[in-house]
Amino acid sequence: MRVEAFKIATSSPSDVAQLDNYIKQSIIDPNDVLCIIGKTEGNGGRNDFTRELAMTAFEELFSKYLGISRTEVAERIVFSLSGGCEGVVSPHIVVFTKSGNILQEARQEKRLAIGIGSTRKFQASEIGRVEQVEETARAIKEIVASLKVDSAEDVHFIQMKGAITNYTYQEAEQALRDNKPLRSNMVYSRGASALGAALALDEISAKDIRDDAICQNWDLYSGVASCSAKPGLDHTEIVVMANSRYAEGDLIINHGVLEDILDTKTVHKVLTELGIKCDICLTAEQQKKIVGVFAKSEADPRNIIRGRRHTMLTDDDISDTRYSRSVLGAVLASVIGDTAVYISTRAEHHGPLGGGPLAIIAKV
Amino acid sequence: MRVEAFKIATSSPSDVAQLDNYIKQSIIDPNDVLCIIGKTEGNGGRNDFTRELAMTAFEELFSKYLGISRTEVAERIVFSLSGGCEGVVSPHIVVFTKSGNILQEARQEKRLAIGIGSTRKFQASEIGRVEQVEETARAIKEIVASLKVDSAEDVHFIQMKGAITNYTYQEAEQALRDNKPLRSNMVYSRGASALGAALALDEISAKDIRDDAICQNWDLYSGVASCSAKPGLDHTEIVVMANSRYAEGDLIINHGVLEDILDTKTVHKVLTELGIKCDICLTAEQQKKIVGVFAKSEADPRNIIRGRRHTMLTDDDISDTRYSRSVLGAVLASVIGDTAVYISTRAEHHGPLGGGPLAIIAKV
Amino acid sequence: MRVEAFKIATSSPSDVAQLDNYIKQSIIDPNDVLCIIGKTEGNGGRNDFTRELAMTAFEELFSKYLGISRTEVAERIVFSLSGGCEGVVSPHIVVFTKSGNILQEARQEKRLAIGIGSTRKFQASEIGRVEQVEETARAIKEIVASLKVDSAEDVHFIQMKGAITNYTYQEAEQALRDNKPLRSNMVYSRGASALGAALALDEISAKDIRDDAICQNWDLYSGVASCSAKPGLDHTEIVVMANSRYAEGDLIINHGVLEDILDTKTVHKVLTELGIKCDICLTAEQQKKIVGVFAKSEADPRNIIRGRRHTMLTDDDISDTRYSRSVLGAVLASVIGDTAVYISTRAEHHGPLGGGPLAIIAKV
Amino acid sequence: MRVEAFKIATSSPSDVAQLDNYIKQSIIDPNDVLCIIGKTEGNGGRNDFTRELAMTAFEELFSKYLGISRTEVAERIVFSLSGGCEGVVSPHIVVFTKSGNILQEARQEKRLAIGIGSTRKFQASEIGRVEQVEETARAIKEIVASLKVDSAEDVHFIQMKGAITNYTYQEAEQALRDNKPLRSNMVYSRGASALGAALALDEISAKDIRDDAICQNWDLYSGVASCSAKPGLDHTEIVVMANSRYAEGDLIINHGVLEDILDTKTVHKVLTELGIKCDICLTAEQQKKIVGVFAKSEADPRNIIRGRRHTMLTDDDISDTRYSRSVLGAVLASVIGDTAVYISTRAEHHGPLGGGPLAIIAKV
Repeated sequence: MRVEAFKIATSSPSDVAQLDNYIKQSIIDPNDVLCIIGKTEGNGGRNDFTRELAMTAFEELFSKYLGISRTEVAERIVFSLSGGCEGVVSPHIVVFTKSGNILQEARQEKRLAIGIGSTRKFQASEIGRVEQVEETARAIKEIVASLKVDSAEDVHFIQMKGAITNYTYQEAEQALRDNKPLRSNMVYSRGASALGAALALDEISAKDIRDDAICQNWDLYSGVASCSAKPGLDHTEIVVMANSRYAEGDLIINHGVLEDILDTKTVHKVLTELGIKCDICLTAEQQKKIVGVFAKSEADPRNIIRGRRHTMLTDDDISDTRYSRSVLGAVLASVIGDTAVYISTRAEHHGPLGGGPLAIIAKV
Repeated sequence: MRVEAFKIATSSPSDVAQLDNYIKQSIIDPNDVLCIIGKTEGNGGRNDFTRELAMTAFEELFSKYLGISRTEVAERIVFSLSGGCEGVVSPHIVVFTKSGNILQEARQEKRLAIGIGSTRKFQASEIGRVEQVEETARAIKEIVASLKVDSAEDVHFIQMKGAITNYTYQEAEQALRDNKPLRSNMVYSRGASALGAALALDEISAKDIRDDAICQNWDLYSGVASCSAKPGLDHTEIVVMANSRYAEGDLIINHGVLEDILDTKTVHKVLTELGIKCDICLTAEQQKKIVGVFAKSEADPRNIIRGRRHTMLTDDDISDTRYSRSVLGAVLASVIGDTAVYISTRAEHHGPLGGGPLAIIAKV
Repeated sequence: MRVEAFKIATSSPSDVAQLDNYIKQSIIDPNDVLCIIGKTEGNGGRNDFTRELAMTAFEELFSKYLGISRTEVAERIVFSLSGGCEGVVSPHIVVFTKSGNILQEARQEKRLAIGIGSTRKFQASEIGRVEQVEETARAIKEIVASLKVDSAEDVHFIQMKGAITNYTYQEAEQALRDNKPLRSNMVYSRGASALGAALALDEISAKDIRDDAICQNWDLYSGVASCSAKPGLDHTEIVVMANSRYAEGDLIINHGVLEDILDTKTVHKVLTELGIKCDICLTAEQQKKIVGVFAKSEADPRNIIRGRRHTMLTDDDISDTRYSRSVLGAVLASVIGDTAVYISTRAEHHGPLGGGPLAIIAKV
Repeated sequence: MRVEAFKIATSSPSDVAQLDNYIKQSIIDPNDVLCIIGKTEGNGGRNDFTRELAMTAFEELFSKYLGISRTEVAERIVFSLSGGCEGVVSPHIVVFTKSGNILQEARQEKRLAIGIGSTRKFQASEIGRVEQVEETARAIKEIVASLKVDSAEDVHFIQMKGAITNYTYQEAEQALRDNKPLRSNMVYSRGASALGAALALDEISAKDIRDDAICQNWDLYSGVASCSAKPGLDHTEIVVMANSRYAEGDLIINHGVLEDILDTKTVHKVLTELGIKCDICLTAEQQKKIVGVFAKSEADPRNIIRGRRHTMLTDDDISDTRYSRSVLGAVLASVIGDTAVYISTRAEHHGPLGGGPLAIIAKV
């Protein structure tokens, strides 16, 4: 297995011109494209239509090259498009390709390996509850095993699009009567997905997983999960990125857990462990090595950061999600020296309160 | 002359409780208060009433302690309140007091000295033109001289509230006929004030000052100016901060010019020159030394930062001024470790395009 | 009792110049001022500081004229300031004065009478529950009785600022254990206040008042309530406006219940019953008779209005509260011909879902 | 010629399901589709991607049915999509079809006739100047003539997408030196298009058309124009709607000029002239007759409406374009009883300052 990653700037949400060029120039083989992670310039909210617009362009492009329908494109390739390019964050995509299968024999060095899979279908009653956490953990473990990693510590990034199973009014009413109200919504699905990752990688222990801990006990969290959720999706799509001796190529990945959205120390630590040690910010030479930066941001729900009051959660003109992406995007870009960074928001059980996971992929 | 500075967090724009405590505890003598620079949590725009609310509270407080009218308070103390606490920027004020006069004999070390003054009154026809630049430079030089600095290089921060003289419709029409349209507005006033500082400190040469260079030739700029402008004000209020051998106390000031709003290298350089050298971000011990951080931000008008597209100027939902303050506030806070940083926007002739001045005051 | 009302345009939230003129010209006797209802130009949300700014100006003005402290001003006069002048809604205040007491003998005609009062203090555990509803009803009945109305149908407008009693973490936890979670918040307080009005005026029957009906059974509502709520206030302030044979003057009041925020038919009905019948919109002559227009707006929570989808609740850039005020303000102004209309939002148990009460005060 | 119009609600910008149904059910023949006018739920600004998303869906649909490329679809059918469904305005499209040609012999009654055409290509130097006005007028006259109207008074709606010809930096500089600065922008293009309509229909006289009157003399305006402009388009696309004795079908059109965005009298007048006289608002029966409502809104640039201050232009949180669409949409919907109304903003030379044209299409 050889994974390659291509960071491509976009001039608008529907811009696939450079990706098309790469395909035409045989730099990217469309058959090898595994997943595309990117930022589009909407508001990241309910009325953000930039992701749909981008999807339209991607589906049309790959439909043409692969000779399959749009629906098949969406099923074959994992797309993780996050709306909201606040502040300096620059609209871009990172295209991941995979050629060959996991090796039979271990190599000396570990290299980036990617595995894709999904959970079984969930009932609405399972979302945001122990059932979702455990099934998510099971699916992740299966994918991780396929990558032949030395240990769970080699897993650095798990991107998930979580299930939010539809339900009827009757089901919701029955659940209330059963004293087990439905949790089939964004918050609980993201939280349970993240805990699934934490459980799979032994970041938390199985005994801590209880219904009343989900979205309640914030001491439980994953340092590698990056979860969104999609209404109407009845299973969870999973992408696992890890370093494996059974993968080739020139990419490696590392991660850290940001204590808050100003935590540059952890950014430097993650870079240093990737062999990219820098003083204040990366040199132009070092910047070329970075192919992907992926993080989760959130405005600290306690209204405090570094001991002082912030106003992100009490501002009724601008959403805290936009502020927190703007802040973490600026902080990461100031160290990396590149504004093509992927920040998505809402981080239930993703790192500690007010913080979140950060993963960086670099060329060796 | 001994200057002291007190950084005070505020719980709302009208919160003067802690300032009042300091006065009651004799930590601050209200008679010594020279100027107050602070951030309030509005939008920083035309319908930002937080500055007026804060002024009401300050005027009432000092009116009581000094036994003078509200109007006299506003004339006696310089207030530079900037609206907009985007992202992590925390609402706060820095209160500057001065006791004693400039010393007669030079001391070994230089210490922070502050001088206050103003220009003569301007005609509307002079705003944004050579006349404003030259008179501003003259007034600054006079203040600088009173601080007995060794050289212009000891001047690090010039906060100005610039004139925007009122005019009649007839005057505007006459000016058009004279082919010298009135420039009595925010943009030109700020630009001319900044060029006045640049001229006073020999950052630019007198021959470069022409009407058609103002708000046109962006290669001309000041690295120490921080200018706002106020409609209806017919003169410019000036606060000069410099290091002088004729001042006592334990504060020093330094400045640098940010190349862009991600420029952490310059932040580190300014800190290092203040004797506060740090690796990635300040230690808790070092943070205590910082009493004021003052910067100007702007979304690069070329729509590019670090070689990549930004969307701050094409977003019709959120103002670029709010984005740029959010970005620079996050970047400064990530190095300083404190979110009580003062960022104001719009930076015509303040540093290079997309960049701006940064001044830091620290305890020795 | 003779009630007068003065509609005064304001040039900014702190503008009390015209009110001051009226006092200086003896048009308004400051001793007679009973309450001031007005719109200020903020966002109506948590970071709307325009109401505080306006209060500062009012308190200072009346403190000077009445020779009492600011706190005493706020206790003596009822201020109902609502932030948010969206669309055409023009910032203004309506100042109500009362001279003399309720008459001993009935007159032929009914005239506007105003009564002011308050509930007892509430425990946090009572807010949003039957206790709040019943005590609010009791207090209203008492005020209504003092106005000597012929029947409950003569009561047309009840403005309330509702209690949101503070509580400790321990109290909240205990309430949870008691299976009676605290409801001491904006939504429940407003809802319970409105049901209190409905109960007092027999709009609903006592048997319908149950804890689980509050903010659940939207078929229960008042057509005359206009409630806000204030965190930290431990009692509810009440202003009752009614037509009484025991009042003099030249003002009368009427109300109607808007079916939705486009319901011009009800606007015309309320005007017609006031003796102001018009075809499409009021004539200039008729407009002079209108001294106050007070309404509650809300974006229909079912996402539908007049059978079609609206997007007010799924727009993450602009709050639905701002949209609904803009819409109803425009609709009322288009009929009345005056943009000085008072619209406040959130209308739990105020009229049917998506609709709300409308009260109009006119000169006879 | 027989024109039909279909008002179709959309569930999102890319929703073409109902249109597709109509085609499948042979209610609409895709070959007959002439133009589609609609509202999408974006912000109507530079970062509104909903129009592009809608175009993608329309192009794909018609490409399939007509067997032509997407580009050909966009050239064949006129699409006028306006972003911004503020307040109650409901996302929808009106699909216009035409079967048969203009009749040879006049009929007794006039019916809706539609003609489509375009100007010649414009140089950038012509945009916003007399050349654009005159060529636009010429093209309109040609289209009008083809509809065989009795007089200019039978023309009620001219929808235009105006040219904003691209230019080089050199061309812009040369134009400045020639003292004829380029006006190839939104404001001037819209203004010149509107004046072109006014000239074609003798609403203004040829002698009034001077370069310095365009976007200066607001007394000159059209009551039937509805213009947008598109950067990069080098000609102006024109749709003319008129009543003609040489057209069949059951549709008629009428228009009026709103004095301001609250002007319900003109709405009633336009309806009455269409034979739809109503008291306050249309009955359910009358509503069924209305197939299209098209208007232009603007926040009065004098900051005054009906004699009172409005804050739409001094609010830095929400754009005046969104406010004015919300207001006029609410006012029209309150009379029509239907929230599927088309309001677009910016109305240079479209009706008087603060007002704008209103066109309504109804079934006889």
